[in-house]
This record gives sequence, structure tokens and C-alpha cells, in this order.
Amino acid sequence: MLRRLTKDETRSVLAEGKLGRLACVDNGAPYIVPVSYVVHEDSIYIHSLFGRKIRALRENPRACFQVDDVKDDYHWHSAIAFGSYEEVTDPQERSWAVRRLLSRFPHLTPVESVPVHDGQSSVIVFRIRIEEMSGMREG
Amino acid sequence: MLRRLTKDETRSVLAEGKLGRLACVDNGAPYIVPVSYVVHEDSIYIHSLFGRKIRALRENPRACFQVDDVKDDYHWHSAIAFGSYEEVTDPQERSWAVRRLLSRFPHLTPVESVPVHDGQSSVIVFRIRIEEMSGMREG
Repeated sequence: MLRRLTKDETRSVLAEGKLGRLACVDNGAPYIVPVSYVVHEDSIYIHSLFGRKIRALRENPRACFQVDDVKDDYHWHSAIAFGSYEEVTDPQERSWAVRRLLSRFPHLTPVESVPVHDGQSSVIVFRIRIEEMSGMREG
Repeated sequence: MLRRLTKDETRSVLAEGKLGRLACVDNGAPYIVPVSYVVHEDSIYIHSLFGRKIRALRENPRACFQVDDVKDDYHWHSAIAFGSYEEVTDPQERSWAVRRLLSRFPHLTPVESVPVHDGQSSVIVFRIRIEEMSGMREG
């Protein structure tokens, strides 16, 4: 049975997922990348080296974020969030976000984490501030 | 070890995946949906009822399609394709595409398939014609 998720259920799907897909608009065309993330309050935190998605999101901050968990064709749920890109520049919030990301994703190499603490990081920490979300499930 | 996929490997990841994420641009903002699909030649075939993604893609045909297969944090591959939306209107090609989709995804209900054959279908069959693709793998 297919049904719409409640807001709380949608939030749980987003919060419990580990691999999300982030879409942005790059020169009028869509661009998707898979990302590791953590959800805190009304934001999805992600860190990244500078590249295409950061360049595109700086230009157009509209973002769409999708997470699903598919057990099989009849048992799955999916959530989608819309929001806007904000770079996290406050050193304390950056450091907090990176610690949360690394404790959730210990396979991320130290290379990605260490520079954050020396004030000369090339790692960008950003959040998607959620403005709207919805979800569906089957089974 | 992280490495870029060759074109043939990227094509295989796209062709063998079953659940892809399709992104389009809706009024200047990105929109992602998970979709079942089949790849044939240079196109990704998808069918859908009319809704937000079809409305958006009719207005801006640029599409991005992403597929991944994650065994664990150290063993995964991901492919991304860029292309443009084209509705399939030729009855023979529509019927062929729907048969391929239903044989690959037998859980799709007959409701979604039957009307295609009576010439009065509200089901939209479309393809994303791939113009560019790339992929990465680890492990």
C-alpha cells in the first residue's frame, strides 16, 4: 500500500539516512551528486572540497535533497526536501559539523578533516536549510 | 582506492542499475525523483503519470540522471548522465518501452501498463537522450 508520509516520518527518513542525493542547478541544467550528511534541527549538513556543486550552489542556492531506503520493490520509503544552500563559516559550527560528520562516517579520511582545524581549510562545510519536505512509502 | 570509471564501465553501471534518480529544473529550482528505468542504446527510458517532473521537463528538457550501487562505505560505484528529455510518441516505440519496463519491473501494476495499449493512455513514456556521462568507483 502506497501512502504519503507524515511530516515526522519524513523527518525521520531524512535523519536516519546516510547517503542522500543532492541536486542543484548549474547554468540552467540540473546536477545531482550522492553525498554523506547529517541532519540537525532544520538543516542538512554536508562537507565537500570545492568543485562543481559548490560553484553552482554559490550561484543558485536552491537545492533539492532526496533519500530513500529500498528493502525491495514492495517495501521502501523515500523523502525529499527543498531548501537553500548556506555556507557554514562560523568556526565553532564548522568544527561541530565536521565532528558529527566524521563520527557518523568514520571512513572519511583524516585528510578531509584535519585541515578544518587549522584555519586554512579548503574543505567547505555547508547546510541546506530545509524549507519544505515530503515523503512516500510502500509496504 | 578511488578511481574514475571508463566510459564502458559507466555505461554498465547505468544499464545494470534499476533505481535511478532523475533531476530536472522546475522554475529555476532543482527537483529530484527516484525512478525505475531501462537503458537502450543512448537513451534512458522511463514511464510516468503526468505530474511535476513531466511539467518541468516539458518546460526545460535538461536532465541529470544518477545511479549508484553501494555495497559498503569502501565498495561502491556511481554513475551520472546528462541529457535531454524527449517524449516517446511513436506507438511502436512506446509499446516496446513499456514492455521492457514491465518485464524488468513486474511489480508495476497493470493499471500503469494496460492503458498504453488502448491508444488513450495517460501514461507518459519518455527518454533521456544521454549526451555526456561519467562515473567513479571505490574498492
